[in-house]
Amino acid sequence: MNGFVSLVGAGPGDPELLTLRGYRALQRADLVLYDALVAPEMLALAPRAQRFGVGKRCGRPQVRQETIHALLIRAARRGRRVVRLKGGDPFVFGRGGEEALALAAAGVPFEVIPGVSSALAAPALAGIPVTHRGRASAFVVASGHFEGELPPVLESVAPGSATLVVLMGVTTRARLADGLLRRGWSPRTPTALVWGAGRPEQQSWRGALGNLGHAEPPGGGEPPGTIVIGDVVDLAAAIAAPARAPQEEEAAHAGS
Amino acid sequence: MNGFVSLVGAGPGDPELLTLRGYRALQRADLVLYDALVAPEMLALAPRAQRFGVGKRCGRPQVRQETIHALLIRAARRGRRVVRLKGGDPFVFGRGGEEALALAAAGVPFEVIPGVSSALAAPALAGIPVTHRGRASAFVVASGHFEGELPPVLESVAPGSATLVVLMGVTTRARLADGLLRRGWSPRTPTALVWGAGRPEQQSWRGALGNLGHAEPPGGGEPPGTIVIGDVVDLAAAIAAPARAPQEEEAAHAGS
Repeated sequence: MNGFVSLVGAGPGDPELLTLRGYRALQRADLVLYDALVAPEMLALAPRAQRFGVGKRCGRPQVRQETIHALLIRAARRGRRVVRLKGGDPFVFGRGGEEALALAAAGVPFEVIPGVSSALAAPALAGIPVTHRGRASAFVVASGHFEGELPPVLESVAPGSATLVVLMGVTTRARLADGLLRRGWSPRTPTALVWGAGRPEQQSWRGALGNLGHAEPPGGGEPPGTIVIGDVVDLAAAIAAPARAPQEEEAAHAGS
Repeated sequence: MNGFVSLVGAGPGDPELLTLRGYRALQRADLVLYDALVAPEMLALAPRAQRFGVGKRCGRPQVRQETIHALLIRAARRGRRVVRLKGGDPFVFGRGGEEALALAAAGVPFEVIPGVSSALAAPALAGIPVTHRGRASAFVVASGHFEGELPPVLESVAPGSATLVVLMGVTTRARLADGLLRRGWSPRTPTALVWGAGRPEQQSWRGALGNLGHAEPPGGGEPPGTIVIGDVVDLAAAIAAPARAPQEEEAAHAGS
């Protein structure tokens, strides 16, 4: 049995943000199981491989998680070199931990190849450092899939004590903003929403937390996005100069 | 003026965790200014470049931040292609935001190339997913350079409501643990310390928060490290099998 599984983080969307190690795993792969948010150009980096999309669309899994585990295990036992290609980093909201545990339990050899997480890259590509001397010395990353008023960790974080990054929070953004305002966050807190980070179609909105519920992508639609909340967001006006990112339209609904 | 500055995230230590885009920036660089934690093998990826180390050692800057800004600006104005190579991601405790602002103010064209942050990769390379269904749906990243009892954000985060990752916290680990225990965190909270993540000399310690102050690298010394606190740490026992990471000694002081 020479089969092997690589759990690979694809990064935020730009194939150039794949790691060298991830690139090499794709080059030698026999089979690639990829998520919905993985860029098509990245699949071209695995010329020898069969490729199957197993990601979620509109929140509905195309393939059940247990089925993904079974596919990975079966292919590896047949001696195939398998890449499980996941958007961002495999261990940040990617269920990579569950897949690693399933492989370990089955005795299938595997490796984890970290990727550039959208939690950091989406802000960075919009000109926002998540930490910055005098503005933020910590950041909190939470999921926008939450029940109730707020993601549990945000119930307690003191207003302004860290940059907040919320992934998969486009559809719950109004509830998030309301919950934070009720917890004492200022409605003027600088806030950004970055859609399609690292993709040619990247767009971002900047404004105030009090207006987050009304943030709309300039190009319309409702693509996946990353929310960033905190004083660091203001730095984007200086750092994300249009000359360097001509594809990025800044709908600068600044302040309120 | 065709000079240009690339602020590049080098990733946690393994040159193979550099991004393709970072690799290409190094290949064409005329000048590389690099931090202390950048691996020597990575500098070999910039064969045409002059290379200067400008990082901190033992907390003391070798070169003042303002001097780094001046070097970047002067080289770009002379038409050179400059790479500012920073450990991890340039915008996570890297002062990359300050450098970006200085370049923008000087009218020097630049780009930010995100990297794999040690905040996520150090746990991942030790077999720890920072999020995991049923164990953690959020994580907090803070700096171990803090005054007083705790990093400010950790004064408020409810015990157990997120995975905590503390960078640059090796020397303050006992104070961190004491502060968290006083805030109501259980002394039994699973905790890990990962030294030299992504390097051949990677080592890790796993135990309980109550024992963090006594964590020592199995190989001795006091290398830089990343602290991870939360129930996800327990998953490392299953995910980080020695067969896949023979270089990693697990000093499993489990529980207390």
